[in-house]
Amino acid sequence: MLKYSLSGGKRLRPALIMLTGDLLKVRRRKLHSLAAAIEVLHSATLIHDDLVDDALLRRGHKTLNAVWPPGATVLAGDFLLARSVSLIAELDDPKLLGVLAGALHTMSAGEITYHYSRQNRKNRDVYFHSIGAKTASLFSAAMHMVGMLARRNEGEIELLGMFGREFGIAYQIVDDVLDFIGTERQLGKPAGSDLAAGVVTLPAICYLERNPEDRSIDNITSKKTGQREIKVFLSKLRRSGAIEDALDEARVHARKSKAALAKLSAAGSRQTLFDLIDYIVERTH
Amino acid sequence: MLKYSLSGGKRLRPALIMLTGDLLKVRRRKLHSLAAAIEVLHSATLIHDDLVDDALLRRGHKTLNAVWPPGATVLAGDFLLARSVSLIAELDDPKLLGVLAGALHTMSAGEITYHYSRQNRKNRDVYFHSIGAKTASLFSAAMHMVGMLARRNEGEIELLGMFGREFGIAYQIVDDVLDFIGTERQLGKPAGSDLAAGVVTLPAICYLERNPEDRSIDNITSKKTGQREIKVFLSKLRRSGAIEDALDEARVHARKSKAALAKLSAAGSRQTLFDLIDYIVERTH
Repeated sequence: MLKYSLSGGKRLRPALIMLTGDLLKVRRRKLHSLAAAIEVLHSATLIHDDLVDDALLRRGHKTLNAVWPPGATVLAGDFLLARSVSLIAELDDPKLLGVLAGALHTMSAGEITYHYSRQNRKNRDVYFHSIGAKTASLFSAAMHMVGMLARRNEGEIELLGMFGREFGIAYQIVDDVLDFIGTERQLGKPAGSDLAAGVVTLPAICYLERNPEDRSIDNITSKKTGQREIKVFLSKLRRSGAIEDALDEARVHARKSKAALAKLSAAGSRQTLFDLIDYIVERTH
Repeated sequence: MLKYSLSGGKRLRPALIMLTGDLLKVRRRKLHSLAAAIEVLHSATLIHDDLVDDALLRRGHKTLNAVWPPGATVLAGDFLLARSVSLIAELDDPKLLGVLAGALHTMSAGEITYHYSRQNRKNRDVYFHSIGAKTASLFSAAMHMVGMLARRNEGEIELLGMFGREFGIAYQIVDDVLDFIGTERQLGKPAGSDLAAGVVTLPAICYLERNPEDRSIDNITSKKTGQREIKVFLSKLRRSGAIEDALDEARVHARKSKAALAKLSAAGSRQTLFDLIDYIVERTH
């Protein structure tokens, strides 16, 4: 199960951790433990989230919960959570663990609120709160931890957290955009999957802001429509300007991420990190 | 969900931690964090285990998974795992966290092995391995951590771990005995629930050792029988001497637990702890 669940993925979080840690001259051995801990924690939350969402495909492969019983899936996630904590414990600094626990706390509470409260999901604030908890909190925590390993002062650690947080928001918006414009082959699952599962992301919210009287989104999220109606709506959304609205928002956060990175005092070149930020906004899959 | 899941229970782990910590003159503030962390971790694993086992009753109340959707149940468990890690992080000693993570690791791996490998469950070794992972590892870890907070040397910390481990084994055996001899009112669920769920515990193994040709256990665990046949088997088992065999085994481990405690160097009285060990063996619910 672990081999299956840990294979694939872009390893974006480890890449960000290694590059930022190198810039701040953190020892490689420590960065490896941190990068592994964060990627393993990320995998654990994906495993539980796919179970929660009943998602059957990820990265073009069946999810764990599509192959193994739900119980085994829960426990495989728990096992990885434990491994993640062990990896951080190796770094011998209890403050790091407080940050990791805080992120896990925010992520699970955010998912519970998003899935089980009766809030209106067709709302920017709800969306940003949700991706802040689900995605950006872990990027932010990871950058906090790099700053702590580099023994930076509190102000600089805050700056690193902001860099990670804005990076994570930009990344998640683009991920949500790709769910509307990618091909099934690129996505490893049908386009529009989020909306079909009742998750209303920024492109759909931007569409509604432009077309407040359109009921398509309500019909899709309440499962009143079939695959064909979803395809019709996808092409309407793609022509509506909503994709560009959402990507503009992603670019705003990418710029904020770059600005925080630029303010950081560091001797080396941050060009690769700037390039990484450009990549997450401009990528097509 | 949290209020619901954290209410009830004997608070046995916190009691053991407070009493042992007092004996070793650990500061109360630290003991409170540790006791809360261990109880919260215990609750998190119960929540996930009940989901894994599809158990609908615990302590006479519906389980979380009987009331809320599976997804919410997974996330509530994750939230509590995060809280447990936060509480330990407050204690400001990364070695404590390594121990906690090790226990969580053992518990989740043990549950996966027990539930999803094709091992023969009607076997003492498999049983002791399973309760060692599921129950005793957390008691052992908790006592390790008390020893670390008390700044004891490695040998004494090992002794404390053994004290906790044997305590946990004795406790779990009696728990498994009570599932066969308790009334539905005392248990908060029907007697024989473990066996009906396919979990073969020590009393059933002792029964088989005395009656190797009896097929009742196979029939019950393969769900070939109804509630009535289970009741017939329960009264056969109660008359077979298997209960006494299992309780004798519990007493052996209780004695080992007391022996480890007696070897520990400490100034105060350990009578309450000895009484607690007697209680877990002699209790009727």
